[in-house]
Amino acid sequence: MSTVKLIEYAEASPEVRAVYDDIMATRKIDWINNFWKALANHPPTLRRTWESVKEVMAPGALDALTKEMIYVAVSATNNCEYCIVSHTAGARKAGMTTEMLGELMAVVGMANETNRLANGFQVPVDERLAKAARGGD
Amino acid sequence: MSTVKLIEYAEASPEVRAVYDDIMATRKIDWINNFWKALANHPPTLRRTWESVKEVMAPGALDALTKEMIYVAVSATNNCEYCIVSHTAGARKAGMTTEMLGELMAVVGMANETNRLANGFQVPVDERLAKAARGGD
Amino acid sequence: MSTVKLIEYAEASPEVRAVYDDIMATRKIDWINNFWKALANHPPTLRRTWESVKEVMAPGALDALTKEMIYVAVSATNNCEYCIVSHTAGARKAGMTTEMLGELMAVVGMANETNRLANGFQVPVDERLAKAARGGD
Amino acid sequence: MSTVKLIEYAEASPEVRAVYDDIMATRKIDWINNFWKALANHPPTLRRTWESVKEVMAPGALDALTKEMIYVAVSATNNCEYCIVSHTAGARKAGMTTEMLGELMAVVGMANETNRLANGFQVPVDERLAKAARGGD
Amino acid sequence: MSTVKLIEYAEASPEVRAVYDDIMATRKIDWINNFWKALANHPPTLRRTWESVKEVMAPGALDALTKEMIYVAVSATNNCEYCIVSHTAGARKAGMTTEMLGELMAVVGMANETNRLANGFQVPVDERLAKAARGGD
Amino acid sequence: MSTVKLIEYAEASPEVRAVYDDIMATRKIDWINNFWKALANHPPTLRRTWESVKEVMAPGALDALTKEMIYVAVSATNNCEYCIVSHTAGARKAGMTTEMLGELMAVVGMANETNRLANGFQVPVDERLAKAARGGD
Repeated sequence: MSTVKLIEYAEASPEVRAVYDDIMATRKIDWINNFWKALANHPPTLRRTWESVKEVMAPGALDALTKEMIYVAVSATNNCEYCIVSHTAGARKAGMTTEMLGELMAVVGMANETNRLANGFQVPVDERLAKAARGGD
Repeated sequence: MSTVKLIEYAEASPEVRAVYDDIMATRKIDWINNFWKALANHPPTLRRTWESVKEVMAPGALDALTKEMIYVAVSATNNCEYCIVSHTAGARKAGMTTEMLGELMAVVGMANETNRLANGFQVPVDERLAKAARGGD
Repeated sequence: MSTVKLIEYAEASPEVRAVYDDIMATRKIDWINNFWKALANHPPTLRRTWESVKEVMAPGALDALTKEMIYVAVSATNNCEYCIVSHTAGARKAGMTTEMLGELMAVVGMANETNRLANGFQVPVDERLAKAARGGD
Repeated sequence: MSTVKLIEYAEASPEVRAVYDDIMATRKIDWINNFWKALANHPPTLRRTWESVKEVMAPGALDALTKEMIYVAVSATNNCEYCIVSHTAGARKAGMTTEMLGELMAVVGMANETNRLANGFQVPVDERLAKAARGGD
Repeated sequence: MSTVKLIEYAEASPEVRAVYDDIMATRKIDWINNFWKALANHPPTLRRTWESVKEVMAPGALDALTKEMIYVAVSATNNCEYCIVSHTAGARKAGMTTEMLGELMAVVGMANETNRLANGFQVPVDERLAKAARGGD
Repeated sequence: MSTVKLIEYAEASPEVRAVYDDIMATRKIDWINNFWKALANHPPTLRRTWESVKEVMAPGALDALTKEMIYVAVSATNNCEYCIVSHTAGARKAGMTTEMLGELMAVVGMANETNRLANGFQVPVDERLAKAARGGD
């Protein structure tokens, strides 16, 4: 149960409606999902968050599908139910098959496992790897 | 500083050496990074972890570069220094440019931000999104 | 669904009742919320946790509202549904408006984003900032 | 050690310099800290992140000190060394005393403890608290 | 609501059935819990995960009860509802009493508290402790 | 580098010295580790935290070694370097061998992996497991 009211289009201020309209136009959909209805309780956060998401998730050096899968990876790691569901939906819309989801989650699980092994043993970073991470400079 | 001894090839048991040999052969490299030298303190964990990583990270429905970037996304979220460095190195080797890394981190940051907004307001999942996440069944 | 029985006042031992009575007297309320009913399965943890919460949340150098908002910030970051809801309620009781909640969550989201950017790029701490953090000593 | 080059003012592009100039003007300082020098590897992320931080951290319904302390609370919970140090410095600059830092960390520690007790016992949310969290609607 | 179909025995492929059969035989039970039915959407992950869990959770230098309690500790820290419930059940089956669960959660809560105090103040590791952690070498 | 001064015995107030004395007497050691020297900046937090740790970590339904290993499991999951090192040292002192540490970390890694698989697929809890977790009531 949300800790704030979910603000519907009909009751929204012009400032909020302008964001809702841009979300629907950008995504070519005719409805607004609950995340934005919750953020609408604080219009500056609604506007800023939407503008950031719109810019960050647009295809660039990485395509839309890769970006959605990275979003799912982070959300599964943080256990954000809303984000897991909404971005799994987004990734499926962008072409992710169930097999791809299976491999994605296998990597996410494995990364969470080895993260704890590396941290738990306090493994020191190899100088060779640090150099390679910086692009071999 | 590691909480366990880092076991070098020269002092390793035959069981550990067999894993080290397979790591070097699979990755076409001639050295072993510290992560495996730490795990070698418990040979069953060394063997099992390597076999899992080898299977999970092999190209399949997702290519090697995408898998490495997902690994970086999880490791940055968990703040595992060793894993961030080693998989940023791995992703660069697989073709990631600095621009791609920039977009990757932008998505990771944004996902961590919206994860907390969704959780913090306890936003309920939209039924439409839940259905879409399951592939529209 | 709780993994332990929720212990009601009527069935509680004298030791548990004494804590329940102090919670109600301190907070000027006439009921006990589920968190304490779950802890009552292990009376030493009930007593110790209540005494710590009572001491830590009392107004001091920081006022009660600020403390409740910090509690919400941590709970949203960890995704503890119970804690988000109960401390959002506590902060509202202490005077937090919806606009303040909006700004609070905006800071929480932004901190979670930049935490991952700083970690993901492994940004080294500036010596000037370290000195300023210690109070310029 | 950073996984990307830290870009100094002297070698920065005009787009990056414009952000650096705005950071220094807004904060009334004459240097740039490493976080922004790392983000400068991806100018759109540098610009977007700075604009968001500038907007979110400006005094509003919450004052600057409260916002800095919330930032420290989140950063301590996530263990982001860079963010803990830089925002502890920021909070001190905004007036936080060592005693206030002591109380802040006491709340952060307590919240992290009770978050796990609530999650670990899977305590169900009380309906009264859920209603109070929504502002008694 | 699961983001993938839960695959029942009757509709499972021979590859999946072989894993289900091994789970039931190893655990001496006649049903399959939902976790495995979800993983069955990606048979290689089902097989690999089960083999790893079977190997890791078998009694060795640590007994089964200790291993189940460690699993609960991690799951409560990460807030994985499914894992908290299933491994609390597993620990009870292995002999954990409610009093032991109470002490377990008290340690988990305390560790989460002091983790943030140590991180939040950025406490440097004592050389004596680092030496003792490595076994006094 | 600590964000607060580490307070040595010689310069400590009588209130802080009383806690330091009790730590040394209880643990039968003749020095104070940095964690307590940092907390001493806020004497009420020093006192309360020490009293809680002393109570929680004393042998009870769980022995001291089991408690130290649970502490390591949580600390590795949260990536608290100080806590990993100090409680690995504590567990070794209580009898943990390197083989036991290997099994401990194997469980921690596996739990972190399956936590994300369960969360990532949003696996619903089986009613049978929920009942068993509550002790079969």
